[in-house]
Amino acid sequence: MRIAEPTVERLVQYHRLLEQLRKDGRKVVSSQEMGEILSFKASQVRKDLSYFGEIGKRGVGYSVDSLHRHIDRILATPEKWSIGLVGVGKLGEALLGYQAFRKEKFHFSALFDNDKKKIGTKIQGIECYSSDDIEKVLREKNISVLMVSVPASGAPLVVAEALKAGTLKGILNFAPVSLTVPEGVLLIPVDISIELEKLFFYIKHKDD
Amino acid sequence: MRIAEPTVERLVQYHRLLEQLRKDGRKVVSSQEMGEILSFKASQVRKDLSYFGEIGKRGVGYSVDSLHRHIDRILATPEKWSIGLVGVGKLGEALLGYQAFRKEKFHFSALFDNDKKKIGTKIQGIECYSSDDIEKVLREKNISVLMVSVPASGAPLVVAEALKAGTLKGILNFAPVSLTVPEGVLLIPVDISIELEKLFFYIKHKDD
Repeated sequence: MRIAEPTVERLVQYHRLLEQLRKDGRKVVSSQEMGEILSFKASQVRKDLSYFGEIGKRGVGYSVDSLHRHIDRILATPEKWSIGLVGVGKLGEALLGYQAFRKEKFHFSALFDNDKKKIGTKIQGIECYSSDDIEKVLREKNISVLMVSVPASGAPLVVAEALKAGTLKGILNFAPVSLTVPEGVLLIPVDISIELEKLFFYIKHKDD
Repeated sequence: MRIAEPTVERLVQYHRLLEQLRKDGRKVVSSQEMGEILSFKASQVRKDLSYFGEIGKRGVGYSVDSLHRHIDRILATPEKWSIGLVGVGKLGEALLGYQAFRKEKFHFSALFDNDKKKIGTKIQGIECYSSDDIEKVLREKNISVLMVSVPASGAPLVVAEALKAGTLKGILNFAPVSLTVPEGVLLIPVDISIELEKLFFYIKHKDD
């Protein structure tokens, strides 16, 4: 089962919306309302949810609780993911502090940097190691996910070292550079400059 | 002409690669080599480039210089974009400092924050205003692009205020919340927690 990336993205958005609705004490929600809030078509919402086995009642909608539980099971992780982060600059610290990351399903268990002032200290409560030790520490701590927030020039080398540990299953890359990973390791690039270029492109061409 | 988002993204990546090749003094490049570096199929590279009017010579490849100029014209902006940034926390500062943003085609011309210690000062050389004044300042400076790096709870309100200025053509939203924008304003969400959830989802389901 290879689910298309936009579908997974919508699924995560449904999940977040349902969490909010639960907090607000809502019992039912319609595909129309979910679609309006998230800027999807109601038919898209119904199609997605029925694909994952949930059918709303016509004229009533979906039970917020049961739909939330259902999507929660699909998105749930079988273990608590252990995340490493390399590059504790401003972006790295922003990622560490990112409230949305503070969930039960994952936690940061090691940081890596080249800066001697940071190595050996704790940053936001998490131990910072030398990037030179990344292979060893990833293996010792059995870290499966790595966030990369080093400058573009340094990313390929440190990622190559990290991959040698053999523990990595996924990489979230914030460095504006293409990385090469072996089969079996998932790479998701989050390239802010590309998003900005895309925005400019669309603004420029939207009247064509 | 509505070009699909993945195509625009590849175009930006070709452009970046060609810049690097030019710096390295390379004269020609093949679709195979470009594909290998960027993890696309060579046939995809040829298809994209021929769509935009560039045909490589069989057995020779593309001229690095002329292909770079060609894509540069497609991506070039007709004016120097003026960008505002609201929320000068760690993420906001990371965005400001992001080297990839420091290009001739755009510049930050105003920052906004709620923090009294920041308002009225310059941060990385750029004036910081009160978020309460966002409508007025955007209009005065004719700012067309806004980056939003405030917490999720504060984003909808400040964006609604910003939109009142009537100058915005595009928004890059880093707050993990859905925003509503009128037609004619482009919204590109960069939701780091969604990317991370996607990564977890794929890792969990990849052996299904």
